Amino acid sequence: MSAITYELIKTCKQTGARLGILHTPHGSYETPMFMPVGTLATVKTMSPEDLKAMGAGVILSNTYHLWLRPGHDIIKEAGGLHSFMNWDQAILTDSGGFQVFSLSEFRRIEEEGVHFRNHLNGDKLFLSPEKSMEIQNALGSDIMMAFDECPPYPASHDYMKKSVERTSRWAERCLEAHNRTEDQGLFGIIQGGEFEDLRKQSANDLVSLDFPGYAVGGLSVGEPKDVMNRMLEFTTPLLPNNKPRYLMGVGSPDSLIDGSIRGIDMFDCVLPTRIARNGTLMTSNGRLVVKNAAYARDFNPIDENCDCYTCRNYSRAYIRHLIKCDETFGIRLTTYHNLHFLLKLMEQVRQAIREDRLGDFKKEFFERYGFNSPDAKNF
Amino acid sequence: MSAITYELIKTCKQTGARLGILHTPHGSYETPMFMPVGTLATVKTMSPEDLKAMGAGVILSNTYHLWLRPGHDIIKEAGGLHSFMNWDQAILTDSGGFQVFSLSEFRRIEEEGVHFRNHLNGDKLFLSPEKSMEIQNALGSDIMMAFDECPPYPASHDYMKKSVERTSRWAERCLEAHNRTEDQGLFGIIQGGEFEDLRKQSANDLVSLDFPGYAVGGLSVGEPKDVMNRMLEFTTPLLPNNKPRYLMGVGSPDSLIDGSIRGIDMFDCVLPTRIARNGTLMTSNGRLVVKNAAYARDFNPIDENCDCYTCRNYSRAYIRHLIKCDETFGIRLTTYHNLHFLLKLMEQVRQAIREDRLGDFKKEFFERYGFNSPDAKNF
Ligand SMILES: [Zn+2]
Ligand SMILES: [Zn+2]
Repeated sequence: MSAITYELIKTCKQTGARLGILHTPHGSYETPMFMPVGTLATVKTMSPEDLKAMGAGVILSNTYHLWLRPGHDIIKEAGGLHSFMNWDQAILTDSGGFQVFSLSEFRRIEEEGVHFRNHLNGDKLFLSPEKSMEIQNALGSDIMMAFDECPPYPASHDYMKKSVERTSRWAERCLEAHNRTEDQGLFGIIQGGEFEDLRKQSANDLVSLDFPGYAVGGLSVGEPKDVMNRMLEFTTPLLPNNKPRYLMGVGSPDSLIDGSIRGIDMFDCVLPTRIARNGTLMTSNGRLVVKNAAYARDFNPIDENCDCYTCRNYSRAYIRHLIKCDETFGIRLTTYHNLHFLLKLMEQVRQAIREDRLGDFKKEFFERYGFNSPDAKNF
Repeated sequence: MSAITYELIKTCKQTGARLGILHTPHGSYETPMFMPVGTLATVKTMSPEDLKAMGAGVILSNTYHLWLRPGHDIIKEAGGLHSFMNWDQAILTDSGGFQVFSLSEFRRIEEEGVHFRNHLNGDKLFLSPEKSMEIQNALGSDIMMAFDECPPYPASHDYMKKSVERTSRWAERCLEAHNRTEDQGLFGIIQGGEFEDLRKQSANDLVSLDFPGYAVGGLSVGEPKDVMNRMLEFTTPLLPNNKPRYLMGVGSPDSLIDGSIRGIDMFDCVLPTRIARNGTLMTSNGRLVVKNAAYARDFNPIDENCDCYTCRNYSRAYIRHLIKCDETFGIRLTTYHNLHFLLKLMEQVRQAIREDRLGDFKKEFFERYGFNSPDAKNF
């Protein structure tokens, strides 16, 4: 039996969204769920206790970044990533592929793997399916991701077809190289860009390899939201019902709801933590930029409908002051709120699925957040 | 009755150090004590819950900095500094004088007050005894400090005499201008540099004004440690036994012990938080620079004898990794440890006074920390 299993609880009659449970070696978690990102073995400014208090389940960490700093050998020596960072719940690690393609200017893709430059010091590096598995096995994450190519948007059909086929060959090599199947589950990644025939080819290839879970990759890479939604609608029905589906790099509230409606169970994104560092907050009434002068004497909480640590104890005026003074406690407070907001949103999504009313929930939520307005922002 | 009172519990037979209780409108706290510094209404990276968990009592905040950002009017409107920053224990605010003399290049001292430039934007500013009281009354701190001149070290006897006399006149004006005596206690500051006759003159002047507490000022401004100790030995006997004594800007472990032995009850310093941001830690075996390569694979806690949150949960290797990657959670962990270390040290000092063995404790502590070695560092 795989280290990772998925239990489908029910399907929303209104939307087809799935309520389920993801079972991992470090606990079981209800889905659909949002996973906070801890790039360098820390969710920026948050303690493990903070994350647990806000209801975080699985967190994500980045193979490429940990490979460079501190090095996967050190983390292995520490007893693995859970022990190293003091996190006893589940961890998902990506394959490193995305960073290779997004951070490195000089890369050369070969059948064997990818040659590229360290984004910190320019050193030559080489990442391959086998190397990615070696690193992720050393980290000891509960969920590992197969090493894939994530082509930029847009890419030609011709290029994408070659890429999809290579990604399938790499997926086989990942399965071969993965040597901790008893306590780590490896997910395959469906590619294919905006091309339905290639999405289908990729899904067929990977499903035949019988991974314990699947990611829909190559989305949220610059394409319009309707392209993403269309590709999700097309792709998720090609995936087995009894395996979890993960949409990588998506964290805007509308996309979390839209993804859930299209059968996605897991999401991750740096969005809530990244915008928090600049003082931008997600609230039940839409986005709020707390640095604005309007909040200098506003002693209300960030979100009157939020019961998070930040909103229970601090005012907009205080948080604005901290952020304007570059005080990291301010970022701690905004990060806490934004993560709590998305975790709570997913709780509401799950409840709506349970009650077969996710369509209604989406309508109300979009209206209130401002996603229906003509000048709607991305988040 | 004053808003601030001091209760002398006992005097150490071995050293003369005082064990006491400081009573404030926001709780009573055992002395001698160390007060963490929260310059801009936050002890950098720490939450109020963190500070309470480590046993912090009174914290300090800076009048000058809060005057500029966010402005004392905003804090007053928030219901005072306690409410603004969510801190329900006692707060001490300085007078702003020290920052005027240390941060501003262009200052002109007159009898009325000091003209100087805003260190952030160069704007002209004017601070006086009355203005300092107005700001501190708006902040609503439990303990306010009189506006004084803190001359640089060394200064001539002639200059220092004029300064001491002006500081005494300013102290009277502070008492006059202070208009929340029912819930805020104003401390006088003894100046006089390294001149015994001027220390005596300053102490006589201020004691005759009957403040509820006294600071020994003008020390820890660059003079050798033996000069500081000699001045403390000379000055504290001039102060009334039933009032608390506060040594400003001192936070190295040796000076906390040496100051306690010389009759000081309260200390504050940015040292533990400032060095923490660079990865320098105070431990029971002396200072430790966690960024050093030697700790890359060291999975021991910062201090094997420490039971703080950081040492219970994280390794040197993990903390080194975070600090090297500029991850603020690393600074949160080092800050927590350093503050905990000094608060625990003061607890040990109080216990040693209780048992009349502070001299013995000092001897053991200095030996173990490395203060007795020929190449001893300042902390
Ligand atoms: Zn909140
Ligand atoms: Zn510690």
